[in-house]
Amino acid sequence: MAVIEVTVVPIGTPSSSLSEYVAGCVKLLMDSEGISYQLTPMGTVIEGDLDRVLALTRLMHEHPFEKGVSRVVTTLRIDDRRDKDLTMKGKVEAVKTRLSSSKVQP
Amino acid sequence: MAVIEVTVVPIGTPSSSLSEYVAGCVKLLMDSEGISYQLTPMGTVIEGDLDRVLALTRLMHEHPFEKGVSRVVTTLRIDDRRDKDLTMKGKVEAVKTRLSSSKVQP
Amino acid sequence: MAVIEVTVVPIGTPSSSLSEYVAGCVKLLMDSEGISYQLTPMGTVIEGDLDRVLALTRLMHEHPFEKGVSRVVTTLRIDDRRDKDLTMKGKVEAVKTRLSSSKVQP
Amino acid sequence: MAVIEVTVVPIGTPSSSLSEYVAGCVKLLMDSEGISYQLTPMGTVIEGDLDRVLALTRLMHEHPFEKGVSRVVTTLRIDDRRDKDLTMKGKVEAVKTRLSSSKVQP
Repeated sequence: MAVIEVTVVPIGTPSSSLSEYVAGCVKLLMDSEGISYQLTPMGTVIEGDLDRVLALTRLMHEHPFEKGVSRVVTTLRIDDRRDKDLTMKGKVEAVKTRLSSSKVQP
Repeated sequence: MAVIEVTVVPIGTPSSSLSEYVAGCVKLLMDSEGISYQLTPMGTVIEGDLDRVLALTRLMHEHPFEKGVSRVVTTLRIDDRRDKDLTMKGKVEAVKTRLSSSKVQP
Repeated sequence: MAVIEVTVVPIGTPSSSLSEYVAGCVKLLMDSEGISYQLTPMGTVIEGDLDRVLALTRLMHEHPFEKGVSRVVTTLRIDDRRDKDLTMKGKVEAVKTRLSSSKVQP
Repeated sequence: MAVIEVTVVPIGTPSSSLSEYVAGCVKLLMDSEGISYQLTPMGTVIEGDLDRVLALTRLMHEHPFEKGVSRVVTTLRIDDRRDKDLTMKGKVEAVKTRLSSSKVQP
């Protein structure tokens, strides 16, 4: 289990709004059974088996080309931990627990 | 107004858990009046005046050094749009609206 | 043909020096026939068929785990252009040509 | 001394070629005395005092707006090491030395 952030940026689009392309990419995840993802203001975070998630991001990268775009810049950030299960929820909660229990020293 | 994602990764830490350092960075944002931010599983997204947010990320980058770490890799992604106001909420909602209104064609 | 930048960062290593792990990753590329790559101060840039390069970066991501590291953060940036052939050399030369021919206006 | 990689990507440009904008950004570095930089196929790597380099990347981010672009996505990756001097040349040579001295074990 890994946590992966993906951002797909089409280049040379008629408008500077990209939500149409992002929605098309997210649709691919909605249609994938058993995949957990979270839409953030700067990308999409996906949790799951690394190879399966990478195969999905490969499809997401292809989406703008199918819409007629001729250049796409895709960024993937993979956080892969093998000594314990890494989950989207677990990562955020580990930070929140520290913040609420005053474990953070300035 | 820009939306900025920041990830601060300390290198050569005794453990592979980094939540202690992330919490210290987020604490800096909690203590900053008038700054909106969102903790995601892969980083922290901040919204606000670009120069003010960049000044805050500069402090976040410094945090692990203050904790004794000797190397830090920090990634910043700035999304800056000047033809309309860019907000964290607005960016996510633009995508969700397209998804719910079936505006997405496969 | 796409141009892909990859950075493999092991977390929780005994030292803050990472060149041992980077060298191990680059070795995988040296041993791959017909793959062009360039080592930069911030990562490795690879040029080639996208799916073949992605398969190689998957191996690079695995390398630190084989060395005993328990957490790895890997960043991939894919620049994929379909209206003309994208090469590492062509990308840099396009910029240099503009700079030398004074086509750059302040 | 830190090593910083910067990539400035204008969104919604008339063409999918971006070299014009990249050249304009690099020109800002050429005109900055005492700054070392290296153009790579995927970005520009700059070496120097962190605050001075960050101030330069802030100008680079502004460049496409001055050319009429209304949205810019800029990525910065900062590698900052305080236990020894980090240089672009030193980082690449540390890896090459390991590769040539057969210190890399498969």
